[in-house]
Amino acid sequence: MLRLGYDIGGMSVRACLLDDQSMRVAAHTSRPFPLGKDAQALTELMAQMAREVLLPNGLDAWTVESVGVGIPGTVRRDMGVLVSACNLNLRNAPVAELLRRHFPHADIGIANDADAAALAEARVGALRGYDCAMLITIGTGIGGGLIMDNRIFQGGRKIGCELGHITIQQGGPMCTCGNRGCAEALCSATWLEREGRHCVLDHPTSRIAVLAGGEVHNVTARDVIAAAREGDGIAAQIFDAYVDNLASLVSTCCYLLGTPVVGIGGGVSNAGEFLIRPLEEQVKRRARAYAPDRIVTAALGGDAGMIGAAMLPAAQGIRSTKGMHV
Amino acid sequence: MLRLGYDIGGMSVRACLLDDQSMRVAAHTSRPFPLGKDAQALTELMAQMAREVLLPNGLDAWTVESVGVGIPGTVRRDMGVLVSACNLNLRNAPVAELLRRHFPHADIGIANDADAAALAEARVGALRGYDCAMLITIGTGIGGGLIMDNRIFQGGRKIGCELGHITIQQGGPMCTCGNRGCAEALCSATWLEREGRHCVLDHPTSRIAVLAGGEVHNVTARDVIAAAREGDGIAAQIFDAYVDNLASLVSTCCYLLGTPVVGIGGGVSNAGEFLIRPLEEQVKRRARAYAPDRIVTAALGGDAGMIGAAMLPAAQGIRSTKGMHV
Repeated sequence: MLRLGYDIGGMSVRACLLDDQSMRVAAHTSRPFPLGKDAQALTELMAQMAREVLLPNGLDAWTVESVGVGIPGTVRRDMGVLVSACNLNLRNAPVAELLRRHFPHADIGIANDADAAALAEARVGALRGYDCAMLITIGTGIGGGLIMDNRIFQGGRKIGCELGHITIQQGGPMCTCGNRGCAEALCSATWLEREGRHCVLDHPTSRIAVLAGGEVHNVTARDVIAAAREGDGIAAQIFDAYVDNLASLVSTCCYLLGTPVVGIGGGVSNAGEFLIRPLEEQVKRRARAYAPDRIVTAALGGDAGMIGAAMLPAAQGIRSTKGMHV
Repeated sequence: MLRLGYDIGGMSVRACLLDDQSMRVAAHTSRPFPLGKDAQALTELMAQMAREVLLPNGLDAWTVESVGVGIPGTVRRDMGVLVSACNLNLRNAPVAELLRRHFPHADIGIANDADAAALAEARVGALRGYDCAMLITIGTGIGGGLIMDNRIFQGGRKIGCELGHITIQQGGPMCTCGNRGCAEALCSATWLEREGRHCVLDHPTSRIAVLAGGEVHNVTARDVIAAAREGDGIAAQIFDAYVDNLASLVSTCCYLLGTPVVGIGGGVSNAGEFLIRPLEEQVKRRARAYAPDRIVTAALGGDAGMIGAAMLPAAQGIRSTKGMHV
């Protein structure tokens, strides 16, 4: 069976056709996100994109049996409703119901995009072999997806879990959410970047400054990590503090959720073993009986969300009944 | 049906007979914990205690149909094994199997004591009406029990969750576990007590000092709360900081677990609305969509663990089959 998967982002909407035998992407396409439009316009765009990947494969939307959508926001998966997605300016959108008009015979599932990515990593990526797994995606923010008992974790509110705004350093740096010391304020690539920029201001001849071409505003998280890897003292200090921050986030998640494996994705995960090894060591020491067996880098990169989305209806046990979303 | 429940503590072992019609304690007894003895000696003591509450009710151990045990330690409920309980000096004890010898026809369930207490509060106490609920017990340490989908939460490791050692203030005060900034180091009654003692050292004529009879070592968490309630400035500062700490713990739990109701138990909860109101306000502001509908004080006091223990086998869906623990 071919499954349709969508990854909705603030910049673009991506769609793929997943072959559920090989679990490979058979076709894919991408469009800019329809900024300023409502959920109906979004789902119409999605239907157009579907035709684009379906027709060359001799299929049409009417016959599609499975459609999944990953969205960066709060999702009531059980109801097929997007509760809120600040970056998309959407709220209380009945996405599954709107999609039903275009895919009348399909099982339709929607989920938070980080959860969709975690599902993909757990089924065919770096987190395979575990019935409980967490994926932490580190970019300008922190995304977190959790698989529990082989399914996306619902939590008490049926909206899954949110990692980015747990408090790991009370009274710490201000977060975009208005609180202080959130995981996102201390573990995102943005934190590394900001610390790197401070370093360049204070030490204009430092290794980080050289890597950034001497321009404060050119400094990226990657420069900081590269300088630390080369053995630069100041960069190493920043990087060690970063590992500390991330270890607080991971340990807390493991204490509360008992996840035996944790995947790290997003740009920062390109640091590979240079990040994973000290992180694992710290988390083992801190989380004791709750420490994960393994911390690994994610395997599917930017495609994880799209692939996981295509797996959604089956993974959630969703079966359509006479056109109803159940 | 009458159900046997045990609450094992470092000081004493308590047992009760619970009437499952009225959910009331029909009889109870208590003994000092058999210090320095092994798990077999403990279960033999438990069998003796059973006779004590059973015989006056015309019952004997042979006919008991349900036995539950709450233990302060890490428990594999699915296997009936106590993995470790530092305070009891027990490790890898097959408690359910040992009890089977004394109660051959009973369904036997064991759980962490905080989880058992949470179960009792969720079924017949302050957390009634929710299928997901968390109980945070605040004493010299921090205990946490979590009910999810009407059952004790297992988590990825099948040992539930551990609240006390999540990091809420990286680099913060040292915890007994060896790490810094754990919830237990910042939210326990011990924290309030220590801050109160510092206050008395610095301000020997402060209201806290007066309430403690001028003796630094007499200062208790209760004195600090009482002085704050009377409007004493320094005590109020300590108490506000405490509420901040506790709000970090509660918000983090709600973000990761989605608990719609949180109960606060233990000595500190005697502060009642004086604690709950500012705590609720802070958590609402911090946890946003994940903020609990309600934060309440626990209702069952010190009996919660024993009552919850008696409910365990039924709540876990445990059914004995030919003498096997399943």
